[in-house]
Amino acid sequence: MPPTRRRGPDLTEAIMRTTVELGQELGYARLSIEAIAARAGVGKHTVYRRWPSKGALLLDSLLSVNGAALDYPDTGDVLADLRTQIHAIVELLGRAPLDSLFRAMIGEAQHDTGVAAALNERFIAPQARKTVVRLEKAREQGQLSPDFDLDLAMTILSGPLYFRLLITQEPLTPAYVDRVLKALFTGMRPRP
Amino acid sequence: MPPTRRRGPDLTEAIMRTTVELGQELGYARLSIEAIAARAGVGKHTVYRRWPSKGALLLDSLLSVNGAALDYPDTGDVLADLRTQIHAIVELLGRAPLDSLFRAMIGEAQHDTGVAAALNERFIAPQARKTVVRLEKAREQGQLSPDFDLDLAMTILSGPLYFRLLITQEPLTPAYVDRVLKALFTGMRPRP
Repeated sequence: MPPTRRRGPDLTEAIMRTTVELGQELGYARLSIEAIAARAGVGKHTVYRRWPSKGALLLDSLLSVNGAALDYPDTGDVLADLRTQIHAIVELLGRAPLDSLFRAMIGEAQHDTGVAAALNERFIAPQARKTVVRLEKAREQGQLSPDFDLDLAMTILSGPLYFRLLITQEPLTPAYVDRVLKALFTGMRPRP
Repeated sequence: MPPTRRRGPDLTEAIMRTTVELGQELGYARLSIEAIAARAGVGKHTVYRRWPSKGALLLDSLLSVNGAALDYPDTGDVLADLRTQIHAIVELLGRAPLDSLFRAMIGEAQHDTGVAAALNERFIAPQARKTVVRLEKAREQGQLSPDFDLDLAMTILSGPLYFRLLITQEPLTPAYVDRVLKALFTGMRPRP
């Protein structure tokens, strides 16, 4: 392998950029740490020192493309903030060109427990924690039903999006996100 | 291939039973129409005449195990009926021994459009239609918010279950289903 003079954050960033590029070219199944290392001009041990698996590397790489947008804003209006944050996630992972890589990775997570663990530890669990923090504040401010089960927030908010991404495989549009949020806020039971 | 004297419904049922048996032994990836035909003692064309693909055959087979339980009851109480029906689906597809076959099939649907089509045409779309029919009646009877977006019913009700099945991969218990239903009926917005 050729030596490289890049170090630390630059190198990490170059590897992640290469991963996304190569993933789009090859698809998830044919992507490998060896191929990523070769394209990035580093040794594969350099990659393995930072990431334990292809799944972990791809996930970090996908999120690094626009990771900052995945934090919740806090404008004081919880519905508006959920909209902003979910639109950003859908824009990043639910639409071309990255949606097919993300979907393939979730497909792999159905029979590879390492990929499932990377997905949950690096993406789902941190998102769930941020969601609960934002919604707890909303509840204190009276913007959320005191009866709403906060531990279910991530599942309830994300489930309909993953259902569309993985099952019906219809486009995840901002308009669809808005309809889901409205339905979840309204609730199914009639209001007095 | 040996000749068989079984005909029509008996033969169809024998092939479906064999599919589920063999699927549990081999896993989805190694399951094949050839192996199913051999075990059932029929020619593979006999199988292909009834099902266009492994995905379609497996799905019909999984649903035939307890298909009748997938119809909505109508006791006049929509929440109770949703509970009954969702418990039955979760019992069938969300738990051992069939959950791993179902999950593998959804994994495959991420890169095989034929499997995705079979899943949607044979299971998701009919379920969605039944759900809308049951909920329309509930809405007429005042048991559902008139503002609730019925076209989203299937997504909203199923999404949290698929999220748990495919993403967090935690157990789908009846108690979890009940918590989800309660949260969906309550809604996130405070009630006056």
